[in-house]
Amino acid sequence: MNRLSLNQKTVDSCSLPEAVAACTRAGITSIGVWREPLHEYGVEAGAALIAEAGLHVSSLCRGGFFTAPDRDRVLTDNRRAIDETAALNADCLVLVVGGLPPGSRDLPAARATVADVLADLVPHAADRGVRLALEPMHPIYAADRGVLSTLGQALDLAEQHDPAVVGVVVDTFHVWWDPDLERQVARAADRIASFQVCDWITPLPADALLARGMMGDGHIDFRRLADLVAAAGYTGDVEVEIFNADVWREDPDTVVATVARTFAEHVSAGATSSR
Amino acid sequence: MNRLSLNQKTVDSCSLPEAVAACTRAGITSIGVWREPLHEYGVEAGAALIAEAGLHVSSLCRGGFFTAPDRDRVLTDNRRAIDETAALNADCLVLVVGGLPPGSRDLPAARATVADVLADLVPHAADRGVRLALEPMHPIYAADRGVLSTLGQALDLAEQHDPAVVGVVVDTFHVWWDPDLERQVARAADRIASFQVCDWITPLPADALLARGMMGDGHIDFRRLADLVAAAGYTGDVEVEIFNADVWREDPDTVVATVARTFAEHVSAGATSSR
Repeated sequence: MNRLSLNQKTVDSCSLPEAVAACTRAGITSIGVWREPLHEYGVEAGAALIAEAGLHVSSLCRGGFFTAPDRDRVLTDNRRAIDETAALNADCLVLVVGGLPPGSRDLPAARATVADVLADLVPHAADRGVRLALEPMHPIYAADRGVLSTLGQALDLAEQHDPAVVGVVVDTFHVWWDPDLERQVARAADRIASFQVCDWITPLPADALLARGMMGDGHIDFRRLADLVAAAGYTGDVEVEIFNADVWREDPDTVVATVARTFAEHVSAGATSSR
Repeated sequence: MNRLSLNQKTVDSCSLPEAVAACTRAGITSIGVWREPLHEYGVEAGAALIAEAGLHVSSLCRGGFFTAPDRDRVLTDNRRAIDETAALNADCLVLVVGGLPPGSRDLPAARATVADVLADLVPHAADRGVRLALEPMHPIYAADRGVLSTLGQALDLAEQHDPAVVGVVVDTFHVWWDPDLERQVARAADRIASFQVCDWITPLPADALLARGMMGDGHIDFRRLADLVAAAGYTGDVEVEIFNADVWREDPDTVVATVARTFAEHVSAGATSSR
């Protein structure tokens, strides 16, 4: 498992052409694209730019937010995201499912909403040949970002649909703590649509959304998680996705170089086991 | 389920006599005691003070930190905590099991250590008639406070021992997000040694250790969780335990009054369901 993909969020200050150029300069052959910079540049133009650079798109980030009050708007936006995923020929559309609706404390209801909206989107994804990737989020985000809190829960949902159309994301930051992880990654098998890496650092930065660390700066045993995912049969890209204000302030080429170095040291197959 | 207990940490500025007096003034009949203020006052004197005030001790907080490098010290300190629990005639000794040992990323090994140390302590607890209460902690603390991350995981461990000697804590803050909660609380049944309440607030305060809110200030549906715990057969005290710098700055009598009011509104049996 050596195929590093640069998730665009790791170089958050870059436009799409700048992120593509940074990949090319560093010899990175895959990219995880975010919708906002894609929209800024234009979807068709962006798809052409990426294809000309010879980059593979490991994911489009992101659809989701299924629990928002305006259901029609949720469906319209997610169908558009599915079309964009098809335009980029991306491996999957990452879905961050959303937190509790404003004013609600009904977590089971929010989770039921997620299942309903997913079912509504599946036919369009199947039509476009797009794979939806449910991302279980760390429980720290259950209230405000994602009521899908464990890989097991994501699989319970995904398994109601064709594996070619609904898979899951395994993101080390979100799942590393899970005592049931070994069993659930094995269960996930060919449902694993994306494998993302970044570290869990302490003390947790003040803004919980920007709490993700470069590999090796925190507590995650990447080798163990990469081995689990490989044993489950996953052979796709490994995306480095880091939300961190300090990383975002650095020069993007420096960040990309650090990503490549720490990826080789902590994640890719040649690395020795960390303790 | 109406028996409010004031966990001493909620009035962190109070000495033991001050906390006892605050309970008495407010008509609260149970207290959750912390070891540090108990040691300051003296264990025997503290036990006498609490008995004279007619208070029941719902828990002693806390033993644990099993993953610390010096095993002998861990065992000695925890046996002492067990003795203190017996001296107070407390319902249980709450165990915060500890995070990853310094420099380690081996989460499975840390979890195995927890099981080993627990097994070493069980005979002493049984001798003293003390119930150990394993506290699953929110995954936000997996690296640095508690590698026991779910109620299911705590039960897997507890079930290796006599339920009279090893139970679990259900703390709303730590478990509210768990998609498997309904099933695990039912499974816990007479293993539930303590039920603690406080709210999950957003945005998460900068210090993750002080992120707990007064009931009603956050996203937790206390009524639902209290109903699950009651349905599982728990009839003991309900401890309000709030780590929060803003709460700690307030006058303790004001805090206790707010606790009693929000408890009645959001937690106790007479409350109507919150949405």
